[in-house]
Amino acid sequence: MSLQSVATTWPAIVENHDSAGPILLVCEHASNAFPAPWGQLGLTEAQQQAHVAWDPGALALSRALASRLDAVLIHAPASRLLYDLNRGPDRADAMAPRSEVHDIPGNIALSVAQRLERTEAFYLPFHSRLHAEIARRLALGRQTVLVTVHSFTPVYHGQIRAVEFGVIHDADGRLARAIVAAAQQITPLVTALNQPYSAADGVTHTLRLHATPYGLVNAMLELRNDLIATPAQVEGMADQLAPVLLRALSLLSEG
Amino acid sequence: MSLQSVATTWPAIVENHDSAGPILLVCEHASNAFPAPWGQLGLTEAQQQAHVAWDPGALALSRALASRLDAVLIHAPASRLLYDLNRGPDRADAMAPRSEVHDIPGNIALSVAQRLERTEAFYLPFHSRLHAEIARRLALGRQTVLVTVHSFTPVYHGQIRAVEFGVIHDADGRLARAIVAAAQQITPLVTALNQPYSAADGVTHTLRLHATPYGLVNAMLELRNDLIATPAQVEGMADQLAPVLLRALSLLSEG
Repeated sequence: MSLQSVATTWPAIVENHDSAGPILLVCEHASNAFPAPWGQLGLTEAQQQAHVAWDPGALALSRALASRLDAVLIHAPASRLLYDLNRGPDRADAMAPRSEVHDIPGNIALSVAQRLERTEAFYLPFHSRLHAEIARRLALGRQTVLVTVHSFTPVYHGQIRAVEFGVIHDADGRLARAIVAAAQQITPLVTALNQPYSAADGVTHTLRLHATPYGLVNAMLELRNDLIATPAQVEGMADQLAPVLLRALSLLSEG
Repeated sequence: MSLQSVATTWPAIVENHDSAGPILLVCEHASNAFPAPWGQLGLTEAQQQAHVAWDPGALALSRALASRLDAVLIHAPASRLLYDLNRGPDRADAMAPRSEVHDIPGNIALSVAQRLERTEAFYLPFHSRLHAEIARRLALGRQTVLVTVHSFTPVYHGQIRAVEFGVIHDADGRLARAIVAAAQQITPLVTALNQPYSAADGVTHTLRLHATPYGLVNAMLELRNDLIATPAQVEGMADQLAPVLLRALSLLSEG
């Protein structure tokens, strides 16, 4: 049960490490990789490409934002169906046996030993790396704003979602409210606070684990994935959202 | 600035790792060791023995409790004047330049590089190990109750403290209140909630970092150190407190 007993762990992927901006971007659902020896969990190729396996477009948008904001980016190395890094290991949906309308055959009836193995392979390395990044920035006296980047499906359980840009927060809603205000001022996006989910749905684990204990301002961005489906859409969205984030930080520092 | 650049880190010390009880004991101020190459920070021998360097008696009490409660114990490998593991790296008192009435010469005017070095040497290894312990227990479905063990000086800034046993909590006060109730029922200890400090004083960092994000019930125990100054006192105190903790857990599970 020691970390050393796990032959291979999948560390977080870090980009723009030497960037100087205040924002730390995190993309927990960046990847639809199913690396060996874990395999594809019995999923079809179509399921591996679909939103159940990852947040399509979220990594591309994160990279485009990181470039515009001079921000470090930390993202997931593997599919959230292997381990959903935005859930604690006590949560059934950390290794979901069913997601929306899809059964996940390789996640049904996991033993506690299998849950532990995945926790050690994916969850602990990712969050240790993110924690180290935050602790080092704090030791250096660097301003640190935690922003996680997600996408959501336009149709969920048969329901069409009208919201285009959701902004979610954990205990401290200051940044999220400022982002919503800025987006409504300078973009045409249909923007809403705590939509399509909120902290009450258990979706703010990363914020709760890393931002709230240090009093870091934080927000979780949710983009409807049909709006970031092509490289051109991603660049256009980043062109809209980077100024929104900068204006929101400016609003906070004035307030 | 990577972890790999630090030649030596001081990991947390883990005892009773294979214990089966629900309580996870943590003693962040267990040690008054000043290992090479850090040195004694210019402190006198008397200062190195005093409460500014550690919580005298807290480790002995933790061990006596761990034995009675079948609990794992995670404790600090070095003095809190090198790094106070119950403080984030953004806090000046993580590497305090002054503590109570004592200047700490080796902590005055630390550079950010020096603060980073200590953060990587002490803070990150300790909290990574503690986080791993908690995550593994959660993956295994084990009940986990986080209890930190501290001692306080009977005289602080010239004021005598009448309280003998203080119980402090972070956001969730259920366990702390149950411990106070149980102690008042079955011990003669002068017991108080959120004394001699409270979360508002920034003393619940470990609880906030590890218990609150997972919804773990938690408490910080503070014993007046003149009551745990000898091995016999420590054993007697553990004989009193172990039943208090068990009764408090029982009260919670009934409530």
